[in-house]
Amino acid sequence: MPINPNAEIEITAFAWVPEFAQGVVRDLRARWALEEAGLDYRVRLLAQQRPLEYLKEHPFDQVPCFNDGTVRIFESGAIIQYIGEKSEALLPRDPQGRYRAIQWTYAALNSVEPAIFNVLAIDIFYPDQEWAKLRRPSAVDFAKLKLKRVSDWLGDKQWLEGDRFTIGDLMMVTTLRFLRHTDLVAQFPNLDAFVKRGEARPAFQRALQDQLATFREHEPQGEPA
Amino acid sequence: MPINPNAEIEITAFAWVPEFAQGVVRDLRARWALEEAGLDYRVRLLAQQRPLEYLKEHPFDQVPCFNDGTVRIFESGAIIQYIGEKSEALLPRDPQGRYRAIQWTYAALNSVEPAIFNVLAIDIFYPDQEWAKLRRPSAVDFAKLKLKRVSDWLGDKQWLEGDRFTIGDLMMVTTLRFLRHTDLVAQFPNLDAFVKRGEARPAFQRALQDQLATFREHEPQGEPA
Repeated sequence: MPINPNAEIEITAFAWVPEFAQGVVRDLRARWALEEAGLDYRVRLLAQQRPLEYLKEHPFDQVPCFNDGTVRIFESGAIIQYIGEKSEALLPRDPQGRYRAIQWTYAALNSVEPAIFNVLAIDIFYPDQEWAKLRRPSAVDFAKLKLKRVSDWLGDKQWLEGDRFTIGDLMMVTTLRFLRHTDLVAQFPNLDAFVKRGEARPAFQRALQDQLATFREHEPQGEPA
Repeated sequence: MPINPNAEIEITAFAWVPEFAQGVVRDLRARWALEEAGLDYRVRLLAQQRPLEYLKEHPFDQVPCFNDGTVRIFESGAIIQYIGEKSEALLPRDPQGRYRAIQWTYAALNSVEPAIFNVLAIDIFYPDQEWAKLRRPSAVDFAKLKLKRVSDWLGDKQWLEGDRFTIGDLMMVTTLRFLRHTDLVAQFPNLDAFVKRGEARPAFQRALQDQLATFREHEPQGEPA
C-alpha cells in the first residue's frame, strides 16, 4: 500500500470529480506506475476550482503534477516515464526495449487518445449540441480505425511488445479506458482482453481503489448522488 | 548538410504530399532534431499509398519511422527524445532539466496538438461539412485556451524553460505551426515570436528546405499546381 503521508514523492489529484471521470482521471496513471514500481507516494488533493497559483505548477491546470525533491514535472506521459526510469519492471534497460516502451507511451497519448477523446467529448460534454450529433458517426469511425491499428499490431501478443508489461502498456490501457462508456473496445476482442489484463494487475486495482476512495470521502454533501 | 545516403540513421518521409501539408509533415521534427544534433541521416521515401507491410514498422501508417541500427521506433515524440539523448544541445543532462524538456515534448503532443488538430481538421478536411461549420467556433475557442496557457507560461522567456532550447521547444514550435493557415498564434505576440525564433534557427531552415526540396522533386506531373 504505497500511499504514505511521509513519502518523498508527491502527486496532485482531485479531491472529487463527477462520476463520468471517476476511475479515469489521469493521476490514476501515476498511481498505477508507482504501485508497479513499489514506490511510496503521498497525494496533495485539489478542489475542482484550482487556485490560480496552480498554473505555475501545471500550465494546463490539470492533474497530476509530480515532485520527488529531484524533479518537479507535469504531464502524465513524462511522469510515467520518469517512474519507469526508476523501475526496470516498467521500462526495459536495453535501448531497443526502452525506446519501444517509450514509443508506445507517446503513441497512446498522441496517435490514440485524441481520437478517443473526441468521442468522449461528444458523448459527455456536448451530447445535446447539433454539431456533436452530426459529427459523432465520423468521430466514432476515426476512433475505431485507431483501435483497429492497435488491435492489428497487438495480435495475440500479451502486451504491445510481447510478454513484458511496460509503461507503454500502462499508458495504452488507461487511454482505452476512456471509452468505457461505449462498446467500441469490446468490438476488438484482443484489445478488450488486453485492457482486462491490465485492469487485473494488483497494482492497477490498488491505484483504482485509492483514487475512488478519495472521491467517496470527498463526495459533495446534499447533492444528488 | 546531414542528409547522407550512407548515414547509419534512416528516417521515413513522404515523397510528396498536398500543399497544405508541405512544411509541416512530422518527419520535419526528426530532420530538425538531427540537424540540431549534427547527426547525418538518410531518408527512405514512401508514396502516399504505403505498402501494407509498412504497418509492421508503423502501426498507424504515418511518418517518420527511425532506425539507426540500434533502435527501430516510430512516433515523432519518441524519436525526438532518442535523438535528444545523443545530444546535450537538445536535452539537458541534469534530471530536472532533462525531465522539464521531456515534459514539454509530451505537453506539445498531448495538451496542445489535439486542440490545434481539431481546428486544422475542420479547416482542411471537413470545411464543407455542416458539423464542422457549427463546431468551428468552440474548437477555435478551445485551441485559443491552450495557446493562452502556453503563452502565459512562456511570458517573456526565450524558450519554455528559459534561455536554453530543448526538444520541448522543438516539439512545441512544430506543433504551433499546424495553425499557420490561421491568425490564432499571431493573437499571442510572445508565442508568435517564439515560433519565429524556432523557425529562424539554421537547423530548422535546413530541415524545412530538405523536406520541401523532396516534394518539389516528386511533384506529380500533369496535375494542377
